[in-house]
Amino acid sequence: MGRWEPNARERLAKAALDLYGERGYEQTTVAEIARSAGLTERTFFRHYADKREVLFSGAIELEQLLTRAVADAPPSAAPIDAVASGLDAICAEFEERRDFARKRQAVIWATAELRERELIKLASLAAAFTEALRARGVPPSAAGLTAEAGVAVFKVAFERWIAADERRSLTRLARESLDELRTVAMGGHTPMNEV
Amino acid sequence: MGRWEPNARERLAKAALDLYGERGYEQTTVAEIARSAGLTERTFFRHYADKREVLFSGAIELEQLLTRAVADAPPSAAPIDAVASGLDAICAEFEERRDFARKRQAVIWATAELRERELIKLASLAAAFTEALRARGVPPSAAGLTAEAGVAVFKVAFERWIAADERRSLTRLARESLDELRTVAMGGHTPMNEV
Repeated sequence: MGRWEPNARERLAKAALDLYGERGYEQTTVAEIARSAGLTERTFFRHYADKREVLFSGAIELEQLLTRAVADAPPSAAPIDAVASGLDAICAEFEERRDFARKRQAVIWATAELRERELIKLASLAAAFTEALRARGVPPSAAGLTAEAGVAVFKVAFERWIAADERRSLTRLARESLDELRTVAMGGHTPMNEV
Repeated sequence: MGRWEPNARERLAKAALDLYGERGYEQTTVAEIARSAGLTERTFFRHYADKREVLFSGAIELEQLLTRAVADAPPSAAPIDAVASGLDAICAEFEERRDFARKRQAVIWATAELRERELIKLASLAAAFTEALRARGVPPSAAGLTAEAGVAVFKVAFERWIAADERRSLTRLARESLDELRTVAMGGHTPMNEV
């Protein structure tokens, strides 16, 4: 795959993101993406099933990474600490791609179909988290809650990470968000006007 | 509306749920729902925009209820306690309709389009929660996290509530789930095989 087309996958993704941002996702065709990347449609379809896939590829690998990290946490680790390990593992995957993530998110926010797909991806991530915790022997409802909390932390950290002026790493923001969740759950953060 | 058709709205909803369960959601038409309820299609459309709406009506009222309950929590209440008030308010709305909720959920689980719609509804509930907390002066990221945690608690409690042999109230299950989240966030629930 791609022997004569160095970095075809990345070139296609970059061309697609640029076109989605300029013209809108719905108005962009696969033919235009391929042309803009200097490649053929045939090559596009060797890498992606369709133009939506450019934005959501890697989701399965991400779930596998998460599952492995949760499984590899020390046997004595509490569920929330296993979740922290899982978050560290998936955050590391994103660090080098903040620019791509920013452009991608702008496209997703602009298109209802893509926002739905993103919600499904996050629900699937929560399910993977739950399964991984169940495999560690965590009871079902605690596993479900801890997994949903983990995904909530990831969502909030990710949004902060792609904010225009943010420079801290995703890993750090996720750790801070997890600490914030702990504080909140213990009844912290009274309203500002009460402080 | 419905002066000559007592309980038309409820009759239509019940007929729709029964048909979705028997034949499948996709195979059921509005004409069949109306006929089965002994009403006309015209009456159906006076109550619901389409057959999907039967399953998702009331979502806006639920968000308003939640928003009001969060706003009405004592000014000194911590965000998580305001969330607890919001959960109490929305749970109370469901208590009398466990049977309907069970049938509805079975239909939703069986149909991809409806599962997506359900995810959107929950995301919208989380957004309403976040806004209501922001209005109390809770800082943005704490508001987002607390809201997502609240929705996670609701999801887990709701799933338990509609389980076949469950008899406890949704309100009680939501309170238990919130306590469980607190325990989990503080590092509780070590894996069973370690206890």
